Amino acid sequence: MAQNARLQGLALLVLCVLLYPAMTTAQQPALNLMPLPASAQPGTGSLGVDSSFSIAFTGYTEPRLERAGERFLRQLALQTGLPLSLKPAKKANAILVIQTDHASKEIQELGEDESCVLEVTTTGAKLTAPTPLGAIHGLQTFLQLVNVSPGGFAAPAVTIQDKPRFPWRGLMIDSARHFIPLDVIRRNIDGMEAVKMNVFHWHLSENQGFRVESKKFPKLHEMGSGGLYYTQEEMRDLIAYARDRGIRVVPEFDMPGHSTAWFVGHPELASGKGPYEIERKWGIFDPAMDPTNEKVYKFLDDLIGEMARIFPDHYFHIGGDEVNGKEWDANPKIQAFMKAHGLKNNQALQAYFSGRVQKLVTKHGKAVVGWDEVLVEGVPKDIVIQSWRGQASLAQAAKQGYRGILSNGYYLDLGWSAARHYAVDPMSGDAANLSVEAKQQILGGESCMWSEYVNPENVDSRIWPRNAAIAERLWSPQEVRDPASMYARLDFVSARLEWLGLTHRTVSRHMLQRLAGSASATEFAALRTLTEVVEPVKNYTRRQTAPAEPSSATPMNRVVDAVPLESDAGRRFNDQVDQFLAAACHDSAVEARLRAQLSTWRDNDATLQPLAQRSFLVKEVAATSQDLSALGTAGLAALDAIAKGHPAPDSWKAQQLAILEQVNKPKAQLLLIPAPAVQKLIEAAAAGGTCSTARP
Amino acid sequence: MAQNARLQGLALLVLCVLLYPAMTTAQQPALNLMPLPASAQPGTGSLGVDSSFSIAFTGYTEPRLERAGERFLRQLALQTGLPLSLKPAKKANAILVIQTDHASKEIQELGEDESCVLEVTTTGAKLTAPTPLGAIHGLQTFLQLVNVSPGGFAAPAVTIQDKPRFPWRGLMIDSARHFIPLDVIRRNIDGMEAVKMNVFHWHLSENQGFRVESKKFPKLHEMGSGGLYYTQEEMRDLIAYARDRGIRVVPEFDMPGHSTAWFVGHPELASGKGPYEIERKWGIFDPAMDPTNEKVYKFLDDLIGEMARIFPDHYFHIGGDEVNGKEWDANPKIQAFMKAHGLKNNQALQAYFSGRVQKLVTKHGKAVVGWDEVLVEGVPKDIVIQSWRGQASLAQAAKQGYRGILSNGYYLDLGWSAARHYAVDPMSGDAANLSVEAKQQILGGESCMWSEYVNPENVDSRIWPRNAAIAERLWSPQEVRDPASMYARLDFVSARLEWLGLTHRTVSRHMLQRLAGSASATEFAALRTLTEVVEPVKNYTRRQTAPAEPSSATPMNRVVDAVPLESDAGRRFNDQVDQFLAAACHDSAVEARLRAQLSTWRDNDATLQPLAQRSFLVKEVAATSQDLSALGTAGLAALDAIAKGHPAPDSWKAQQLAILEQVNKPKAQLLLIPAPAVQKLIEAAAAGGTCSTARP
Repeated sequence: MAQNARLQGLALLVLCVLLYPAMTTAQQPALNLMPLPASAQPGTGSLGVDSSFSIAFTGYTEPRLERAGERFLRQLALQTGLPLSLKPAKKANAILVIQTDHASKEIQELGEDESCVLEVTTTGAKLTAPTPLGAIHGLQTFLQLVNVSPGGFAAPAVTIQDKPRFPWRGLMIDSARHFIPLDVIRRNIDGMEAVKMNVFHWHLSENQGFRVESKKFPKLHEMGSGGLYYTQEEMRDLIAYARDRGIRVVPEFDMPGHSTAWFVGHPELASGKGPYEIERKWGIFDPAMDPTNEKVYKFLDDLIGEMARIFPDHYFHIGGDEVNGKEWDANPKIQAFMKAHGLKNNQALQAYFSGRVQKLVTKHGKAVVGWDEVLVEGVPKDIVIQSWRGQASLAQAAKQGYRGILSNGYYLDLGWSAARHYAVDPMSGDAANLSVEAKQQILGGESCMWSEYVNPENVDSRIWPRNAAIAERLWSPQEVRDPASMYARLDFVSARLEWLGLTHRTVSRHMLQRLAGSASATEFAALRTLTEVVEPVKNYTRRQTAPAEPSSATPMNRVVDAVPLESDAGRRFNDQVDQFLAAACHDSAVEARLRAQLSTWRDNDATLQPLAQRSFLVKEVAATSQDLSALGTAGLAALDAIAKGHPAPDSWKAQQLAILEQVNKPKAQLLLIPAPAVQKLIEAAAAGGTCSTARP
Repeated sequence: MAQNARLQGLALLVLCVLLYPAMTTAQQPALNLMPLPASAQPGTGSLGVDSSFSIAFTGYTEPRLERAGERFLRQLALQTGLPLSLKPAKKANAILVIQTDHASKEIQELGEDESCVLEVTTTGAKLTAPTPLGAIHGLQTFLQLVNVSPGGFAAPAVTIQDKPRFPWRGLMIDSARHFIPLDVIRRNIDGMEAVKMNVFHWHLSENQGFRVESKKFPKLHEMGSGGLYYTQEEMRDLIAYARDRGIRVVPEFDMPGHSTAWFVGHPELASGKGPYEIERKWGIFDPAMDPTNEKVYKFLDDLIGEMARIFPDHYFHIGGDEVNGKEWDANPKIQAFMKAHGLKNNQALQAYFSGRVQKLVTKHGKAVVGWDEVLVEGVPKDIVIQSWRGQASLAQAAKQGYRGILSNGYYLDLGWSAARHYAVDPMSGDAANLSVEAKQQILGGESCMWSEYVNPENVDSRIWPRNAAIAERLWSPQEVRDPASMYARLDFVSARLEWLGLTHRTVSRHMLQRLAGSASATEFAALRTLTEVVEPVKNYTRRQTAPAEPSSATPMNRVVDAVPLESDAGRRFNDQVDQFLAAACHDSAVEARLRAQLSTWRDNDATLQPLAQRSFLVKEVAATSQDLSALGTAGLAALDAIAKGHPAPDSWKAQQLAILEQVNKPKAQLLLIPAPAVQKLIEAAAAGGTCSTARP
């Protein structure tokens, strides 16, 4: 399905205008902004940015804003290589003046005003915002505007009026299956700030780990984390770090399922007999809390109270997903309770549990967020439903008066292309037909980084740059939807994100160097050539095709772990093929480029095979390398046939498609991304067609 | 001269066997060790390293050793991607057993035993060392041995007996001209540990900054650093960090010259009238301490005392270089003093000063290290001379009974090739003819990273990987000197060094992305093609050819700041040309590779020029890009002429050499590294010669 979405995206790319129309004039290059603002009026000329650049604050100010200013200058200095003074200047001398009217809420609230106006002229810039939240966003916009130009670094003259489309724009990171250290979390929060996301949803407990220090119940983290947990002080620091960047932190404690790690220290909470161990494998497991045990609620009351004091946000996520009910079915006491209380099935039992927990959360001054499953009849209206199972459930919730956020379509671990995520809109599908009131229940969305197949080393590369496309979907007007424009800007933003310390681009080269060992420069280049055009298998195929049952002890040092989830080189090749085939008369320059690329692929395997003999990790992709070679040969043959100008024989087509069929079978859990484009070339060759014949 | 050294290196590369003979057998690949050990006996087979890998300590142990073990395991996990347990195992279960006999000195001493023996068999490994110092070195050797193999990660079976050739193997970093933050220092110390260097020489004061917190004289850092200094606590932490890695820290306070920054807060120390400001420019300046002022010695007594309590090392560097004497000449009081004390010239006055300071250093329990200039008649014998002006001065000092360390030939900021540094031996030149006793005065050497043209961003890339070649020179037996072997191993070690957090490889791409702005992938590839074969101008030419007088306010965001100081691609091309020309009958496969490369260069400019029109920083290298194109065309013409098999006409040769002459003129402070090789092709074409004619 990812492949289809990609192809659709590419078709659009060819058909659509290249840039969001409002953003461009004949004189002015398009703005490299992501997310695109609500509105932008290009001006004339640009504002030079040199070593004398400075900022000043006017109106309301606060330490957070001053830190944002210093962070902005530090980032601008990095981005330009200019030695800038980090101290604010006097207003009269400042190039960029930041005017803020009043404070934002002491605890950042859902739906607070995040708007700003940024005016850049040839002589200076002014950023105006009601509160520091808008100012923080506007500073990121300015950073994205500054680029190298013929005369130095500069920001184009423009007037931007900006505000988000949705108030809830989140990223969830699963720190539980694989523990993600704080420095990695922090740089991802920097990335969120850069693309104006405002909710960090922190998935903190799982079968595989309870990642939070509890002073009330220290056995939770001492026995349930293998030593990998966040202290309360660290979490408080992280929350302050996020607040500085206009980002709320919503903690998730998943219950009553996904909770084996709790039971290692506290088996009395479980529905089964125990003893329990920290789960090492992935999947849905039997252990679940006992909803019939009053001690469980006493425990949760204390724990939620403790956590509510650490996490100031108004929202508290209680999970609620994927309870298989096996421990409940097997426990006679629970069965008796259900009968006594008229709970007809496990769903009803879970609803009873959720209701009880919801009351505890409310008691501690918070509102509940839960996955789809928590939405059953009678659940109070102030809960927020996080929809992972589909857009239909989101619309259904909204219709019933529940607020919701969309995550279905934004699961970063499924390996979809940025274009496919980008096409998912919280207001499309069933939501499109909702009443105006019901639509207002849809608060936004959250991308989700589940961590079965990511670790601290490669997690950045699984989140970025695709997450920026989702951020744009949630911030920018609904009409902003051209994937070609998105990709053009994403390329740029992706490079910028690495200046924040994110490693999504560099880590791939590092990991390839590891598995290449002492490869020669030529061999390493061949490995790069191959790995630039593959992607890991999509959706849940990674698990289904794993060579051995994966677990938290599985090394993640294979090619499938090293390559980006989306192949830029593959996408560009596919673009070129579309461009080549779309022209009635084939463009010989494009053809030459295609031939050069295909020849490189054809010959690449010969260079790579000796390395495969020396490294078991390269050996794993030896068959994929042969496939790429076959793809190169087939593509060249197709171009030869096309050049002849009359249809290639059916037998030839059948033979070539048989090769493609082999190539399309994933090997080493990798897909060869140029395969569909080569197939198009083969089909075009079989169809014939020259300048004089119209193409179908 | 760098060019000549390079060419000599390349000639050697072609002539010499490819690997250090003792290191290799027919069965066993060469060991990727740098520095190469004193002796290595290859065994049979290899030791597998998988997730169960563990270590155990036996014999003497201490917290430092345990930390070294954990650091080793963490590094091994990074290097392999294996999820390793970081806790030591029981001896019976451990794969690597580390046996240490006794403690090293409480304060690491010059000349302590650093030896170790490492035996790796197919079933396990044993590291034996008299003290933790040897064990720390041996762990790094083991890390370098582990590599990917056909069957998994593995270390080859081998018995290594190792010890350093010289006891003083240092790296100096100038933190004064450009302040270098502690995280950057720390990762460079990690790099030093990896290549077994054992002295970090910290250049802490300069005209441009006094970088150390003084509680005694706070005006020193408060007024003399622009806020960029190390606190005493930070320095103590850094010293502990270095000690953990077997590295001594020698502080340098440069006096009586190079000291303008001291005088901003303390003009009373100077020989001139002041007032003084922090110097922003580079060079030799007039301000100097007043050697005739008793208050200066009182001040230095207190300051040296304060610093001696922070820096535990026995050696204390007092600089002493480059006093131009102008303030002394202009000060009548100083002139009168000189007359009264029979000091005939400024050199004698400086000797008087050095003698006084040396007594203060001795009083505080330390021995003096100073640059060449401090060696004048009558200086006490316990000082150590750091020779920057030449090997002759080192030999002279040794003859007179002074100990010395060589830095001439190891100035990293001069941009020499690794091969050129590698060829410099502390025992060559005049030192080769010293008596056995005099030779023992030569303690080793130090590479020096002066920071006029480096900042925290690119300093790693100015130190590494070349510093590893110097480290090998100072550790390995004198016979280890084959540049081809060195380069083969350097490539490997360079990649490994980035796992420590060093950024010498990745930073170049980052900086190029900055100056390329929103380049297309093709344009960026063209920029890479160009920048891969250029190097910054050598020696002191950077200053002489600067577009404007450089200072600490000069941005370092140009191509010359971004490219590595040594071009690997350029070196490889030059190798190939030598290989091509050395064969009596030209190898058509090599010729094809050369043609492909030359064609890429010829065509590269067309892709790059549009980008140059959009970026002032790319524009700066537009002429260099045209030169590369010309080089490609000339090289192809030469290959065509060679293929004809008879001498090309003189007029053709003259025309081609005229082109080369233009190309050889540095532009944008860059050299085109393949130019000499193309010139060789032209000369070969002019000389003619085919399979049937012997080549000169």
